Amino acid sequence: DFQVGDRDLTEAQLNAYLEAEAIAVDTETMGLLPQRDRLCLVQLCDPHDRVTVVRIARGQTDAPFLKRLLEAENTVKVFHYARFDVAALRYHLSIEVQPVFCTKIASKLARTYTPRHGLKDVVLELERVELDKSAQSSDWGNADNLSEAQLSYAANDVRYLLSVRQKLMKMLQREERWELAQQCLSCIPVFVSLDLLQYKDLFEH
Amino acid sequence: DFQVGDRDLTEAQLNAYLEAEAIAVDTETMGLLPQRDRLCLVQLCDPHDRVTVVRIARGQTDAPFLKRLLEAENTVKVFHYARFDVAALRYHLSIEVQPVFCTKIASKLARTYTPRHGLKDVVLELERVELDKSAQSSDWGNADNLSEAQLSYAANDVRYLLSVRQKLMKMLQREERWELAQQCLSCIPVFVSLDLLQYKDLFEH
Ligand SMILES: Nc1ncnc2c1ncn2[C@@H]1O[C@H](COP(=O)(O)O)[C@@H](OP(=O)(O)O)[C@H]1O
Ligand SMILES: Nc1ncnc2c1ncn2[C@@H]1O[C@H](COP(=O)(O)O)[C@@H](OP(=O)(O)O)[C@H]1O
Repeated sequence: DFQVGDRDLTEAQLNAYLEAEAIAVDTETMGLLPQRDRLCLVQLCDPHDRVTVVRIARGQTDAPFLKRLLEAENTVKVFHYARFDVAALRYHLSIEVQPVFCTKIASKLARTYTPRHGLKDVVLELERVELDKSAQSSDWGNADNLSEAQLSYAANDVRYLLSVRQKLMKMLQREERWELAQQCLSCIPVFVSLDLLQYKDLFEH
Repeated sequence: DFQVGDRDLTEAQLNAYLEAEAIAVDTETMGLLPQRDRLCLVQLCDPHDRVTVVRIARGQTDAPFLKRLLEAENTVKVFHYARFDVAALRYHLSIEVQPVFCTKIASKLARTYTPRHGLKDVVLELERVELDKSAQSSDWGNADNLSEAQLSYAANDVRYLLSVRQKLMKMLQREERWELAQQCLSCIPVFVSLDLLQYKDLFEH
């Protein structure tokens, strides 16, 4: 129930995703430092549950159809902890993702009754689905031979984000924090710029 | 060489400050928590070195001329660690300060060769002036009987900020970080909102 592509979307996939008001996006990398760890996969999901897993090759520096999608103004890109994925996409593929929604920031703003804002926790509470995260820390660099378990983990990581976003948006509106949430989301690209330049604690005393 | 006022600016002072492209602003409070610690002083300085120290009374909730000045779109308000003062002004006097410049953020972005971004350090390097910070942690609540040393400390805290800003802006332009700096400055009001709601680490993993 998902497609696997190499190096980029097809033009047909691009056009299908562009019809959505919002799509879910996740990436898998070799680690947490963009300057050291390469980008291996980009996963997408639209409101019709169409999931695509794009394998990014070693040394690859662009993906034109993916770039057009991720920079398209009329389609919101929904991540869990966008700060990390947006940095990876900018660093490795020169993609300036926008507009950005982050379910982790939305969860922190809305779900003040818990300190648990990992994707697994949020999906469990809001979707009543238990995500299997056992492939999370695995070797994503071996793109030609990814296991079924890895591919299905990668696909599942985007499958619930759009529904989670809807529920968090409702909570934020109910609690009159939706405007604040939008202001916070607009700061994400600034954090990405600071992270890639390795600035730390810029806003702290 | 500075004026001391009570509860607000005069209309004449307001009009004089409104002519400036930028003014320096600082506050003194009873401590670091706006919800607990009241605002005692607001200090201002314009490009002609006109310094005003406005004493804020216990229980005072507005200062209309100060509000008009600090919300005026055509006059940049320059702080050192704006995040703190902007929160105090919003919490105690319902002032939404804008536009905001922060010499601490500008210093961190520009002066990457040092970890020292306190006002004393910045003024020493850029202005070759040694600030006396001995009154920093003192009782600002006794407004009727502030010592000469306290008042002159309060005035000195704003006296060098406009010149510091000019020098930091030049450095940021030279290093091609001016655009990033502007994006960072635009995030300050968002941090103030989060701080006043006592959100912590919203952007962290
Ligand atoms: N400092 C950090 N510590 C742990 N995970 C981090 C991280 N920075 C980024 N991440 C990424 O943040 C994503 C969301 O984490 P969480 O579910 O705990 O909120 C994870 O992606 P994946 O789930 O795609 O592997 C993880 O790789
Ligand atoms: N967490 C914190 N620790 C220390 N100072 C803080 C602080 N939060 C706000 N401040 C304020 O930040 C201002 C600038 O500090 P610094 O010069 O070290 O950069 C100080 O104001 P004052 O100088 O007006 O007292 C200080 O009161």
